[in-house]
Amino acid sequence: MYTLREIAKIINAKLVGDANIKITGIATSLSANQTQLTYINGNKYKQTLINVKAGAVILNKELLKKCPTNALVVDDVYLAFAKVTHLFKKQTVSCQGIHPSAKINHAKIAPNCTIGKDVVIGNHCTIASNVVIEDNVTIGNHTLIQPNVSILQGCSIGNNVVISPGVVIGSEGFGNAQDQQKHWHSIAHLGYVVIGNNVSIGANTTIDRGTIEDTQIHNGVRIDNLVHIAHNVIIGQDSAIAATAAISGSCTLGKRCMIGGGAAIAGHISLADDIIITGASTVDRNLSEQGHYTGFTSISKHQKWKRTQVWLLNLDKIAHYLNIKLKKLKEK
Amino acid sequence: MYTLREIAKIINAKLVGDANIKITGIATSLSANQTQLTYINGNKYKQTLINVKAGAVILNKELLKKCPTNALVVDDVYLAFAKVTHLFKKQTVSCQGIHPSAKINHAKIAPNCTIGKDVVIGNHCTIASNVVIEDNVTIGNHTLIQPNVSILQGCSIGNNVVISPGVVIGSEGFGNAQDQQKHWHSIAHLGYVVIGNNVSIGANTTIDRGTIEDTQIHNGVRIDNLVHIAHNVIIGQDSAIAATAAISGSCTLGKRCMIGGGAAIAGHISLADDIIITGASTVDRNLSEQGHYTGFTSISKHQKWKRTQVWLLNLDKIAHYLNIKLKKLKEK
Amino acid sequence: MYTLREIAKIINAKLVGDANIKITGIATSLSANQTQLTYINGNKYKQTLINVKAGAVILNKELLKKCPTNALVVDDVYLAFAKVTHLFKKQTVSCQGIHPSAKINHAKIAPNCTIGKDVVIGNHCTIASNVVIEDNVTIGNHTLIQPNVSILQGCSIGNNVVISPGVVIGSEGFGNAQDQQKHWHSIAHLGYVVIGNNVSIGANTTIDRGTIEDTQIHNGVRIDNLVHIAHNVIIGQDSAIAATAAISGSCTLGKRCMIGGGAAIAGHISLADDIIITGASTVDRNLSEQGHYTGFTSISKHQKWKRTQVWLLNLDKIAHYLNIKLKKLKEK
Repeated sequence: MYTLREIAKIINAKLVGDANIKITGIATSLSANQTQLTYINGNKYKQTLINVKAGAVILNKELLKKCPTNALVVDDVYLAFAKVTHLFKKQTVSCQGIHPSAKINHAKIAPNCTIGKDVVIGNHCTIASNVVIEDNVTIGNHTLIQPNVSILQGCSIGNNVVISPGVVIGSEGFGNAQDQQKHWHSIAHLGYVVIGNNVSIGANTTIDRGTIEDTQIHNGVRIDNLVHIAHNVIIGQDSAIAATAAISGSCTLGKRCMIGGGAAIAGHISLADDIIITGASTVDRNLSEQGHYTGFTSISKHQKWKRTQVWLLNLDKIAHYLNIKLKKLKEK
Repeated sequence: MYTLREIAKIINAKLVGDANIKITGIATSLSANQTQLTYINGNKYKQTLINVKAGAVILNKELLKKCPTNALVVDDVYLAFAKVTHLFKKQTVSCQGIHPSAKINHAKIAPNCTIGKDVVIGNHCTIASNVVIEDNVTIGNHTLIQPNVSILQGCSIGNNVVISPGVVIGSEGFGNAQDQQKHWHSIAHLGYVVIGNNVSIGANTTIDRGTIEDTQIHNGVRIDNLVHIAHNVIIGQDSAIAATAAISGSCTLGKRCMIGGGAAIAGHISLADDIIITGASTVDRNLSEQGHYTGFTSISKHQKWKRTQVWLLNLDKIAHYLNIKLKKLKEK
Repeated sequence: MYTLREIAKIINAKLVGDANIKITGIATSLSANQTQLTYINGNKYKQTLINVKAGAVILNKELLKKCPTNALVVDDVYLAFAKVTHLFKKQTVSCQGIHPSAKINHAKIAPNCTIGKDVVIGNHCTIASNVVIEDNVTIGNHTLIQPNVSILQGCSIGNNVVISPGVVIGSEGFGNAQDQQKHWHSIAHLGYVVIGNNVSIGANTTIDRGTIEDTQIHNGVRIDNLVHIAHNVIIGQDSAIAATAAISGSCTLGKRCMIGGGAAIAGHISLADDIIITGASTVDRNLSEQGHYTGFTSISKHQKWKRTQVWLLNLDKIAHYLNIKLKKLKEK
């Protein structure tokens, strides 16, 4: 807990309002309550600012007069936010094997595991060798955690889940703010990973925690090996993601989506329910209509591919040379 | 071991034949013997069914009259198969450090390793810290296992093999059957991973076990970091696979293939001997002729790429507009 | 240390010069001193050979008369080099928990860690559970190593670094020489990984050591999850690399580059400062001009993609059919 005065000093902000209020945490601009801090970055969130219920808002001076609560005025809002997140990050490293406060019910625990403070492990779980479960993790019933898995602080895992070897759950998201010298400042990710029931997660897959809110893997999801699930991703019920796919930050997948191996989904993309993405495709826009989507270059003899690429990279010139207009094509 | 009656009950099948026969395991339709169960999914395997030697076959009612042995008749064959695999899955978690039944000959074993029941480790091996070797694994001579590796039950590794840190060998394949409510049911993978001699495997690579038969990495193969080798893949002798490549389920690579980094090979693809795949390419068909193959979009200035994509996605309309027929091109 | 006579015998080379000189190590042809061995593979390095300061050079007979120092003459230079690297590879497996020679200053060390001989860990570091730090590793101050990380022998890590769970630092590079029977011979990688200050590295990322010189991650770099950094890569200051990207061997990235998720950079590529690569793009040539670059196929409905691919793979035939010459386009 910090006073607003203390926070203003740390991020070098001009404080407008009550310097003595106590800030207990950070929340999004839509959910923050009067003991929480939030931020508004840019004019397009002006309406959100007007309705904000937060104890204080980090913003820049152009938006100050719209602010209905205490304000921390800075030049670079995102950078100030990045710095302030570290104040609320919990220290997580356990320094003993199984902490006495951990509640473990009839679980099978293999050697060389670390189980942190206030961890709860349900009935009939199996925790294989060299698993690290940090403080405040909750695990349901009949869940199997295979060797060399790391589950970081505060994450929760449902019933009948299988976590394959080498998986990392709750790693930091890849969120960084740049200062004027182009140096990066990490954002401390304060959200968790929440995994539902009947989920399976493949070997060496990584799932990052959310920035403020949680990364969510809903019931019945299947994730293969070496998949990357970034911060704040939501994977809808019964979706399946094949190996080496990468789901970027803040993507939302609907129910029963099937993402082929090696597919990449760009940041902040939404997929509707029942979307199928062929392996190795790149999803560079929202897909709101169910169906099967694809996008890659088929394999060719290398010599043929070289001839193809020459013309491919000149397609716009060819169109111009042939005097083809895009609208002519669209009329067809 | 289960009687056919017990299995029929578990998967809710209609049993036609001898309910009392004992089933000792699951095998493929081509290899199952009279104490084993198999499945036939679809009419295209009718001839296989006629010649089957299995103790019993899971099939649907249309194929029942062709069945020369005991039958378990169900509506969804693949789902029934998925459920039955779990009956024959071995429990694998070791609950002590080095099991007294493990046979270890002059190996160097670092701290915090788990070595399971009936493991055999050959002469002059080195097992680094935090390695987990589950029950019934066999390792040859002069093999080096680096830190934090997980080798799951029953897999075998040859002589002079190097397994880099964080590798997972024998993880479950990504095989799942969907029920009518679109929920996934995992298939318990009963095969192993069999790795030959003089193989090296890069850091954090994952190799899944086979569904019924084994995933095979033949002698002399080189695999780089973060590679995914799915269930039932066969990698031919002296092939090399560069980092972050993904080889999907049931692919077969010939001898001396070279797969570039980040390449993806779709499921059930066969590559002949001496195939070279450029990095980042996607192999979407069988390649039966040796040679060098490629398929990706070369890098461009982003603005140029945007102009290229517009026309690329309209190639079929351009062809129509210009009244070009594919057969005209093929005549050339 | 070996005499040149011993080395000649091991690699089956014809020795020309002083058989008794002592060789203490291997270095590049530009940096080797008179107690070091190097190699020259091919005529294009003739000028380098003329200026070499090495104690001895592995080369083939065509270049022998240009050699100003002792020579080991072989048919296959690269294969001979691969074999000789193993003579100078340090054995690295630690067989106790924390070696008494390790210098650890006020660090927090969680359970089940292995810390090797002559490791130096600076002030206020945190080493989480199941971390393996091999001999001669150096770690700066205020660095956090998360669970299940492997840091292999001799690597160095700066101040204020965060290493996420499951990371592997210092794995062998993917360098292999082929003999006449097409069998692969691994090169023992003798370089290290050198990581600067204020770096963060994401979960399950792998960074290979250099062949002779070091892989370098400069100050302020941000690397996401499941990224592959190959041997001898140099990542310039304040660059950022998103998840599942793969940077191939001997690439050099300038300062402040931003590499999108899933991007692949081919071997020996150089990127200037301030290059942005869109995710999922493949960089197949050097980029010397700052800017934003892209290259992939946008996602389409699968049926539309199939129509697009047909024409794409016939672009050269279309151009021929329409009688378009590349130079006509270039004139525009």
